Amino acid sequence: MTVTAQQIRLAKRPVGLPDISTWELTTEELPELQDGQALVKVDHLSIDPAMRGWLNDTRSYVPPVQIGEVMRAIGTGTVVASADPAVAVGDHVRGMFGVTDYAVLPGSALEPIDLDVAPESTWLGALGMPGMTAYFGLLDVGKLQEGETVAVSGAAGAVGSVVGQLAKTRGCRVIGIAGGPDKCAWLEEIGFDAAIDYREGNVTKALRELAPKGIDVYFDNVGGEVLDAALANLRRGARIVLCGAISSYNAEEPPAGPKRYMALLVFRASMTGFVVFDYADRYPEAIKEMSALIGDGELVARETVVDGGIPGFPDALLGIYQGINTGKLVLTV
Amino acid sequence: MTVTAQQIRLAKRPVGLPDISTWELTTEELPELQDGQALVKVDHLSIDPAMRGWLNDTRSYVPPVQIGEVMRAIGTGTVVASADPAVAVGDHVRGMFGVTDYAVLPGSALEPIDLDVAPESTWLGALGMPGMTAYFGLLDVGKLQEGETVAVSGAAGAVGSVVGQLAKTRGCRVIGIAGGPDKCAWLEEIGFDAAIDYREGNVTKALRELAPKGIDVYFDNVGGEVLDAALANLRRGARIVLCGAISSYNAEEPPAGPKRYMALLVFRASMTGFVVFDYADRYPEAIKEMSALIGDGELVARETVVDGGIPGFPDALLGIYQGINTGKLVLTV
Repeated sequence: MTVTAQQIRLAKRPVGLPDISTWELTTEELPELQDGQALVKVDHLSIDPAMRGWLNDTRSYVPPVQIGEVMRAIGTGTVVASADPAVAVGDHVRGMFGVTDYAVLPGSALEPIDLDVAPESTWLGALGMPGMTAYFGLLDVGKLQEGETVAVSGAAGAVGSVVGQLAKTRGCRVIGIAGGPDKCAWLEEIGFDAAIDYREGNVTKALRELAPKGIDVYFDNVGGEVLDAALANLRRGARIVLCGAISSYNAEEPPAGPKRYMALLVFRASMTGFVVFDYADRYPEAIKEMSALIGDGELVARETVVDGGIPGFPDALLGIYQGINTGKLVLTV
Repeated sequence: MTVTAQQIRLAKRPVGLPDISTWELTTEELPELQDGQALVKVDHLSIDPAMRGWLNDTRSYVPPVQIGEVMRAIGTGTVVASADPAVAVGDHVRGMFGVTDYAVLPGSALEPIDLDVAPESTWLGALGMPGMTAYFGLLDVGKLQEGETVAVSGAAGAVGSVVGQLAKTRGCRVIGIAGGPDKCAWLEEIGFDAAIDYREGNVTKALRELAPKGIDVYFDNVGGEVLDAALANLRRGARIVLCGAISSYNAEEPPAGPKRYMALLVFRASMTGFVVFDYADRYPEAIKEMSALIGDGELVARETVVDGGIPGFPDALLGIYQGINTGKLVLTV
């Protein structure tokens, strides 16, 4: 059986936003399966804000995608052929497939996913990397305590929406910061105590009104001015969890950095970065708790699913920087 | 007995560097001693980088000095009259006297200092706030571990020089960053493994050469570009201790903030602010260890003493921002 895969490869490193010259749509005949390998038909691909960083030729927490390489992406799919006795045809799996409709991987690189717990797309969202990021970032890095005041930016996104809902399960007061009235309305619908539309008015002032005693944990997905607004509203001993900086990922010039960082001194506060992969051996703990929360209706796992298949990837990626998604952005293949 | 004190008061809040219009030199007849009070002849005043911040009418870790108020300053002196049975004439004491040559304070606000351990000026430096700041910042906030690589900016200053020497007593490799060849030479003389003159060449590159595996603890006294240079050279799990930002204290525009703050994410690192007053109940522990280190010659406590009395305060304060001091800057009254 010969399988031809359709793929998106990196053609040229972008400056600023990726455009048509960044990508190349290719087809490739996949090799025969070797012992221990499986062939997966990819159903869904995760579209992640972090993808923009993977395109830069700079030292980071993962190596950059190389020119000519298939674009890196996590996906879910179905095993259609297997030369690994541990993997069966029909298995639903998750893996680092890349932007491709078929992929050959070692069986050991495939994680089984249970569609009785949640649909495939949720295994890329609340039960995927974004969910793990929210869980360990908030609870371990942020050292969240019962009853604290939490603010989260990118609150209607895949990570932020889980951060806020998890904080609610710990009896915290939760303020979400998001772009646009629809997202803000949704946040209140899923239990956030308040939502701030950063496109409308002054976030610093809005935070001061909503959290007059200050924020204990600020979970930052966006950087830029929203981070400065949070710095101006910390409570003594606050923890800032540094998860992302989507506002600057496509900047052509290096961004200015948080002007108000010396607030960390005034408030005896900390700002800590983390990479979710470091918690890989504890994912089962997070999946167990969050699966139960989803089952109980305490955690709403939402995905925005865009069609378009492999050729739709470049537009889907631009979409995440435009904020088209509520919850996790997923591309169907 | 009537005592007239010569004092420096805040006349006008400065924009940028303080100048002649910032201050007013006044004389004031001090009130008669009340029960429980003592009269102190002030011998030395501590000139602190943080003083500039106290002149701004903004929310910070201490209230701003008010217009017309005597400028806040810590000093050492001798009790010349006492209406507190716990305080004797001739006692050597430290207290928050302000910029004045005589001060009336409650006896309970005076700390006795032991001149057999170290001279008065050292009780404003290595055994004063700067020493406490170095001790708790490095060991508690920075969680220094034996054998780590430490970098400190403002390394030839009152805090930085103690940070580096304390780190050496923990078997660490220590890199100091300071301004000018004389300061750098002195750092090597007192046991720093290397010194970088930030006025000469590229600090980012120099740190990379001196610490190719990265820095575990960066103790920041200066902010600005030096902080960015450190961010570019962190080791995984690094801790940045935020102690000061002298490079920006006199800026007329808010400074840009650390452009490379997202390095905290890449390196799973943290940046934590602190205020030394929070450790007040543990000062005796620090004084005990550092007195012993001074006695053993393992800690060189140096002060730059400028004459000029109370009228010399404005120039002395400008001097600290010009970096005229090696070790602690002290004004003799």
